[in-house]
Amino acid sequence: MDKASLIGLLIGASALGFVFFEVSHGNLVMFYSLEGVLMVGIGSVSVTFMAMPLEKVKMVPAYVKRWLFNKTMPVTEVVQLISRLAERARRDGILALESEMPNVKDPFLAAGLKMAIDGVEPSNIESTMRIELIAMGERHKAGKKFFDLLKLYGPGYGLVGTLVGQVGMFGKLADADIGALGHALAIAVVATMYGAILANAIAGPMGDKLSMRASEEMLNRELMLQAILSIQAGDNPRVTQDKMLAFLPAVTRGTMRLAA
Amino acid sequence: MDKASLIGLLIGASALGFVFFEVSHGNLVMFYSLEGVLMVGIGSVSVTFMAMPLEKVKMVPAYVKRWLFNKTMPVTEVVQLISRLAERARRDGILALESEMPNVKDPFLAAGLKMAIDGVEPSNIESTMRIELIAMGERHKAGKKFFDLLKLYGPGYGLVGTLVGQVGMFGKLADADIGALGHALAIAVVATMYGAILANAIAGPMGDKLSMRASEEMLNRELMLQAILSIQAGDNPRVTQDKMLAFLPAVTRGTMRLAA
Amino acid sequence: MDKASLIGLLIGASALGFVFFEVSHGNLVMFYSLEGVLMVGIGSVSVTFMAMPLEKVKMVPAYVKRWLFNKTMPVTEVVQLISRLAERARRDGILALESEMPNVKDPFLAAGLKMAIDGVEPSNIESTMRIELIAMGERHKAGKKFFDLLKLYGPGYGLVGTLVGQVGMFGKLADADIGALGHALAIAVVATMYGAILANAIAGPMGDKLSMRASEEMLNRELMLQAILSIQAGDNPRVTQDKMLAFLPAVTRGTMRLAA
Amino acid sequence: MDKASLIGLLIGASALGFVFFEVSHGNLVMFYSLEGVLMVGIGSVSVTFMAMPLEKVKMVPAYVKRWLFNKTMPVTEVVQLISRLAERARRDGILALESEMPNVKDPFLAAGLKMAIDGVEPSNIESTMRIELIAMGERHKAGKKFFDLLKLYGPGYGLVGTLVGQVGMFGKLADADIGALGHALAIAVVATMYGAILANAIAGPMGDKLSMRASEEMLNRELMLQAILSIQAGDNPRVTQDKMLAFLPAVTRGTMRLAA
Amino acid sequence: MDKASLIGLLIGASALGFVFFEVSHGNLVMFYSLEGVLMVGIGSVSVTFMAMPLEKVKMVPAYVKRWLFNKTMPVTEVVQLISRLAERARRDGILALESEMPNVKDPFLAAGLKMAIDGVEPSNIESTMRIELIAMGERHKAGKKFFDLLKLYGPGYGLVGTLVGQVGMFGKLADADIGALGHALAIAVVATMYGAILANAIAGPMGDKLSMRASEEMLNRELMLQAILSIQAGDNPRVTQDKMLAFLPAVTRGTMRLAA
Repeated sequence: MDKASLIGLLIGASALGFVFFEVSHGNLVMFYSLEGVLMVGIGSVSVTFMAMPLEKVKMVPAYVKRWLFNKTMPVTEVVQLISRLAERARRDGILALESEMPNVKDPFLAAGLKMAIDGVEPSNIESTMRIELIAMGERHKAGKKFFDLLKLYGPGYGLVGTLVGQVGMFGKLADADIGALGHALAIAVVATMYGAILANAIAGPMGDKLSMRASEEMLNRELMLQAILSIQAGDNPRVTQDKMLAFLPAVTRGTMRLAA
Repeated sequence: MDKASLIGLLIGASALGFVFFEVSHGNLVMFYSLEGVLMVGIGSVSVTFMAMPLEKVKMVPAYVKRWLFNKTMPVTEVVQLISRLAERARRDGILALESEMPNVKDPFLAAGLKMAIDGVEPSNIESTMRIELIAMGERHKAGKKFFDLLKLYGPGYGLVGTLVGQVGMFGKLADADIGALGHALAIAVVATMYGAILANAIAGPMGDKLSMRASEEMLNRELMLQAILSIQAGDNPRVTQDKMLAFLPAVTRGTMRLAA
Repeated sequence: MDKASLIGLLIGASALGFVFFEVSHGNLVMFYSLEGVLMVGIGSVSVTFMAMPLEKVKMVPAYVKRWLFNKTMPVTEVVQLISRLAERARRDGILALESEMPNVKDPFLAAGLKMAIDGVEPSNIESTMRIELIAMGERHKAGKKFFDLLKLYGPGYGLVGTLVGQVGMFGKLADADIGALGHALAIAVVATMYGAILANAIAGPMGDKLSMRASEEMLNRELMLQAILSIQAGDNPRVTQDKMLAFLPAVTRGTMRLAA
Repeated sequence: MDKASLIGLLIGASALGFVFFEVSHGNLVMFYSLEGVLMVGIGSVSVTFMAMPLEKVKMVPAYVKRWLFNKTMPVTEVVQLISRLAERARRDGILALESEMPNVKDPFLAAGLKMAIDGVEPSNIESTMRIELIAMGERHKAGKKFFDLLKLYGPGYGLVGTLVGQVGMFGKLADADIGALGHALAIAVVATMYGAILANAIAGPMGDKLSMRASEEMLNRELMLQAILSIQAGDNPRVTQDKMLAFLPAVTRGTMRLAA
Repeated sequence: MDKASLIGLLIGASALGFVFFEVSHGNLVMFYSLEGVLMVGIGSVSVTFMAMPLEKVKMVPAYVKRWLFNKTMPVTEVVQLISRLAERARRDGILALESEMPNVKDPFLAAGLKMAIDGVEPSNIESTMRIELIAMGERHKAGKKFFDLLKLYGPGYGLVGTLVGQVGMFGKLADADIGALGHALAIAVVATMYGAILANAIAGPMGDKLSMRASEEMLNRELMLQAILSIQAGDNPRVTQDKMLAFLPAVTRGTMRLAA
């Protein structure tokens, strides 16, 4: 569970709810418009299907889940885990890592270690792991893309809804009284409001988190790749550790070195 | 047939149709404006010819077709096909792949295999296939570009239409009654509405799908390229398979390994 | 002559002309405003001089000419020409290409072939041709930049014109009758309209075509570079041809192979 | 303490304060709106939590502190320090640098020197230091990202606040007197104003400074990396110095050479 | 002196001046607003200090000066100068270039030649010169950044000014007569106008010129780097010349070859 995601969601929903209530004096129905829901809600569904391949549309629940329940291993833990593996490999040989495999939860690290234990050539390990990094990057992009679609086309459809409403309203400017016009205008503006909320309070920040998590994971895996190559090359474990500590900010390093 | 494209199109058209009907109480003609059609529709045609070389304008139907009927091979199928080819090459030698050629529908993979069977040098295979990747990327960009042009200049021309309408309206502000002004304003706003619909409900999402499909295809072909080089290098088939599995998400890999 | 450019220009101008006529009932003078012309027209001239070095300002007519009269050789012709040269070089030796030089109109290809005939080292040929590609890319960027300047600052100056007009109008809101105010507003809006037309109907699409042509030319020249290196390396002509066909879409290749 | 940051902040706050005072004739409460504060202030908090991992949210005070108290070493000082180290290494051998270590405050330079003194292989020093550069770049990006989030979503939430206010106002257009409507409109517009201030006067420029500082630091560290590799390679100190002077503008170099 | 810069500035100022005069019938004071000056003028100063390190704020006059007085050597002159140097080096040996040094004004070229004459290893020359290119690129970016800040935040502050003015105006909608409201609105809009002028007529184009000049200079220096490496490698001067001519457009080359 990514606590920050949940906290952020609750804070945002509370603020919006309070403001809605305050402005409408509790008469929340004034912020509802069927046209707005159809344009921004159904429009976003339409855009998702038109813009994404079916297999990726099916992944949408997974993207949302990834936003709420994420499990990137903290980089300090990765460094500790690898330190232990490097020590072990030096002491007992690389084959001894076989017995450590059950403790390696990360599938990327596990696959890499397995190749190293099996004696696959370094250049083949590197190219295989790099391919995996690239393919993972492509998959992460698809998740980010979904939220980007909502962020971009949600307000776009909202604008369409507002324009439709305005055309309808201007068309009978002569016949209607000021109250009816104000009401029509309110309904028209609601569609833009839905779009702005979808983009700024929901899809935008969610996509940004996915994107930051993806960067973190890329960095973690780059670390794992460097570590495996260094272990397999038989580098002095001190060198391996220095390389891994280089991934951490200077202030964290002292404690890590002691802990290692 | 890309089912998602069709579904998305129908959902979007239904939502728009319903909202048009609802707001105009069935009097749909209020959403029609000759000026709007000329500006956004004919304007987009003008932009397409002004911005794209003639040979690429002629490809426009092909771009739309590619959006609706796409046939990117799923990456799992590519992996399975290549696994079989790698097995075969190991068992019976690379020349045996000649008899598998009729099963290889993808022209990129077929051309690469043919070169490998003909004994073309690896570096020449790689550079030839890389050139093809680059040239394909350029062609994909042209398709994406067409939809980007509509997405960018459609609303631009729509704005021009609205401004023209407003100038016309402001010019006779003193002479006209409120009903006539409202009507004129409605017609002016319609041009912006057409532009917003073209950009957000049609051209934008279509271009995004083309672009996502292009990324998929690029990744597939990178996979094919790596596989052919690995097969020709006489790599242990296990290594070849690991490289190919690296293109897949970890969860799919288990099943693939069993299936392979 | 790039027919598409001319067709697009005529279509766009007709659509705009018709809409102007329709909205003003033939009284086209209502779309004229000296302030608008000064802001968008003279403003764009000012921006061009402020933003571009003098030598590049002098090239502006050449950029417009390049947009209207372009002569990128179709990639299929390039492939045919090079196929013939490669055949000839194989049959009669690379020096025999000397007699083919008059048929090679493209200066880039000609310069490269000349170096190959003169026996310049491959690495020197490649670096010289790459430098030329980079320098050409820089020059193409300057042409694109000019249209980008108009596309960006034209509407910017148009907005300034509208704001100036609005300030003038608001300043005498109390004294003027509604007709005069409407007239003033119309004139103010005209400046924004000029900017929108300049950006969306003129400079934007022209810059996009220049940019697409530049990509095509870059790809053509990459092809030429690869071909010359392949011919000079004494590659089997079949390999050279495969490399060149890789630049073409799969569907065109069959016919090319027959024609070659 | 980054004096420019403080000066800029004070200038901006004074200008805003004066204009607020001037426009409201001292009645500053007219620029306060609970809805605006909730939308822009609390909305930004919500976005931060939704978009950033918790560990990075905790770093927010550090990002602000970094903006106000920054200590990038001027590049001329770095060059002087390294010149001295290079001289020393040439005269007394690389091990003599051990005694200089207490003067080397920068942890990146210190870590690199330590590896060089310990006799770690150049390729390992380079890859370790490059990793650190990449990881530092990622951390800097997170700081910049925080301010970018405020700059992007602050105005977005402000717009939501304004739209909510407008819907509320239009909904009772018939019942209210012009004074009440004006008041409601003022409150609605305040939310957009808060967003514009947050983006343009606060978060935007702060993020830009962080980003410029990060570039400076990257360049400094690239310099340190080149210097260490050059010292370890036993380059003529003149060559080392030339490399370092290449980081400086031509005008500063003369004085540096004298000073060195 | 960059004549184009001055011409552009004068044209733009004249056009603006004329339009101001025309719209206000000479009563230019209507375009003055203390709030606007404080927001856009002082706001931009605030942004500059908040966003740029102090040393770079101090360089602002130098950035403006660089825009007005630029002295990029035309690429044809660079080619001619280097042709002469290459000829001389072939005829009299590389040491003979010592006597040519006083004619080499460009500090980058001079530093490179000096290293070549001193017999510094080619790889060291290349890396030193590349470092200088990178460092120069970073410095150029800082100049461009300053104008980008004005272009982005100038209109941002202008919007704040307009919103403040509108809040003030809406707040007393009931009490004021239409003339006073129009006046208040005019003053509010002036702030946006100042921002639009700063961005579109001043800072934007100035930044673009700096950026184009920087590209030119980068290309020139790449040419110098290639030339020095080619001269030092003892390449046939014809090869050196071909490489340099590759930087020029085909049409200029004929005349250069004659001149050389």
